[in-house]
Amino acid sequence: MYTANAYAAQSAHSALAPIVLQRREPLPEDVRIDILYCGVCHSDLHQARNEWNATTYPCVPGHEIVGRVAQVGSGVTKFKPGDVVAVGCMVDSCRTCPSCADGLEQHCEHGPVFTYNSPDRHSGGMTYGGYADSIVVDEAFVLRLPEKLDLAAAAPLLCAGITTYSPLRHWKVGPGQRVGIIGLGGLGHMALKFAHAFGAEVVLFTTSPGKAKDARRLGADEIVLSKDPDAMARQASRFDFILDTVSAPHDIDAYLNLLKRDGTLTLVGVPPESLPVMPFSLIGGRRRLAGSLIGGIRETQEMLDFCGEHGIVCDIELIPIQGINEAFERLLKSDVKYRFVIDMATLGGEPSGN
Amino acid sequence: MYTANAYAAQSAHSALAPIVLQRREPLPEDVRIDILYCGVCHSDLHQARNEWNATTYPCVPGHEIVGRVAQVGSGVTKFKPGDVVAVGCMVDSCRTCPSCADGLEQHCEHGPVFTYNSPDRHSGGMTYGGYADSIVVDEAFVLRLPEKLDLAAAAPLLCAGITTYSPLRHWKVGPGQRVGIIGLGGLGHMALKFAHAFGAEVVLFTTSPGKAKDARRLGADEIVLSKDPDAMARQASRFDFILDTVSAPHDIDAYLNLLKRDGTLTLVGVPPESLPVMPFSLIGGRRRLAGSLIGGIRETQEMLDFCGEHGIVCDIELIPIQGINEAFERLLKSDVKYRFVIDMATLGGEPSGN
Repeated sequence: MYTANAYAAQSAHSALAPIVLQRREPLPEDVRIDILYCGVCHSDLHQARNEWNATTYPCVPGHEIVGRVAQVGSGVTKFKPGDVVAVGCMVDSCRTCPSCADGLEQHCEHGPVFTYNSPDRHSGGMTYGGYADSIVVDEAFVLRLPEKLDLAAAAPLLCAGITTYSPLRHWKVGPGQRVGIIGLGGLGHMALKFAHAFGAEVVLFTTSPGKAKDARRLGADEIVLSKDPDAMARQASRFDFILDTVSAPHDIDAYLNLLKRDGTLTLVGVPPESLPVMPFSLIGGRRRLAGSLIGGIRETQEMLDFCGEHGIVCDIELIPIQGINEAFERLLKSDVKYRFVIDMATLGGEPSGN
Repeated sequence: MYTANAYAAQSAHSALAPIVLQRREPLPEDVRIDILYCGVCHSDLHQARNEWNATTYPCVPGHEIVGRVAQVGSGVTKFKPGDVVAVGCMVDSCRTCPSCADGLEQHCEHGPVFTYNSPDRHSGGMTYGGYADSIVVDEAFVLRLPEKLDLAAAAPLLCAGITTYSPLRHWKVGPGQRVGIIGLGGLGHMALKFAHAFGAEVVLFTTSPGKAKDARRLGADEIVLSKDPDAMARQASRFDFILDTVSAPHDIDAYLNLLKRDGTLTLVGVPPESLPVMPFSLIGGRRRLAGSLIGGIRETQEMLDFCGEHGIVCDIELIPIQGINEAFERLLKSDVKYRFVIDMATLGGEPSGN
């Protein structure tokens, strides 16, 4: 074992504060990564505050991790010390079930091992995430990051990026299609970039008139204020695909009715309550309501390579780790354009050597 | 114009009773059909009683029509007097929009002309359905019925048949798949027959233990009582496709969770209220909730031909037209196995000649 410096919540009601973790020494297949940057996902806040009633404390959040390889196990073939790498929402899975065999580890039938707050198959405790100066991950769950990308701005690709890239690819969004993106936050701003990069005509649905200029810069061809019934009516039956990034309760029928025949609306935000769906919204037009959950390791690498080729990163606000609690408060007010990323150099501890 | 004998509702609260209709003389593309049988769909009751708040009176229901060609217009090429034919839920559409061009007239962007209670492009009034001894329909909306089928039992294929056949085909149900059918009524019993004929392993979900024996006869390999939580739990994540024929409010999440990854649940029943859907039921497993509405003319003909080849008809209870009001009451209690069909010979009027 070796020690790593991190920030953890000790209870649902305590602020995140410094902690010293025990991490395992790299096993033969493991990569030890010095963490450079870690994105701040809304899930981090939910878990730290036990809002999903499943948090084990201490909880070290963080699953948008970018770093540099510090050490590799004897069996590691894909990475060497000094490589720039990334880790997303998962650090392991069963690797044998049909979903794992299909490269969809997020749907592992035995449950993937998430990067934090998941039972750790090695330690017997829980996994600890990327609000730390170091992490040890099996090379099968480590991604290669194109070095020409801005490393801090690339961090949120590991969750916000893949969560939006995967459904846009799965439903074959491309040229000639009219695609809607609901919500302009961490997920929505990446969805605009990807849908635009894939060649679609992109329409942002937002409740905030003030976001129009930014939305156009990020890739939107048109902005529709979802609170304007006339504007919504003009969009009826015009969309091949709609990606819904909103986590708050909202009127899903209003968007289903904007789909063409055989169109699909995919949910990636996770509202905590049921969404009421009128059956005729689906029956009329043979429409589909679907869901999507992050993406598999193979597709995450594909997404990072795509971002490298097209120069796509996230729009971020870099913060010191000491600012994480304030960042959580701002996150609750959607006061961020469009993702906080922690500069892990500010954690300040000397690298906890082995 | 010529006169036809029919049964009509004169208001939402009046019983169906005899009426004499004016029908148009066949235009060049028209077929005049002497109606032999007409199935009784639950929609007939909804419309007769104005339960969808859109009924124009008098209302002559009936859109599961089987008959014999009595006369054809000068331009008719597909039919000749004496042919056994059928008419389903539609008698016209715009024929030029993308949906019509794709053979999906039920999704006509200008609205299909339904067989009854729809604005009639010829008369300027409303269309009148198949509870009548005769009807005139453009040949493009007339189907050829394989003569070896029992003609009375074939009538409900025109709505209950195509409504279940179309989504099973669209979602490519076939051998090697495990398919669930929710509900054993008019739609459900046809879904069992088709899913079985397509080679799938078929599971019926029902609230009625008494339906098990019948379900097996109709094609179910397994019956699950949906009120038994343990039985439902054993079905988790095991289905490629589920067809939901239930028109009453029900717990849709309980069924979404039975789908495998990338599985689809398609609604063909139309509950009048919203169905609450938990987003995670779709996001976990990348599942899909879809809808389907009857089927296009081309696919309806394909379905009838398939039924001819495989000897598939509906299980029916033949009634005289004078029994229609009692049949409606029994329909409300789901007291029918599995579809009432009116024997139009009981209408008794002499053919209203031209």
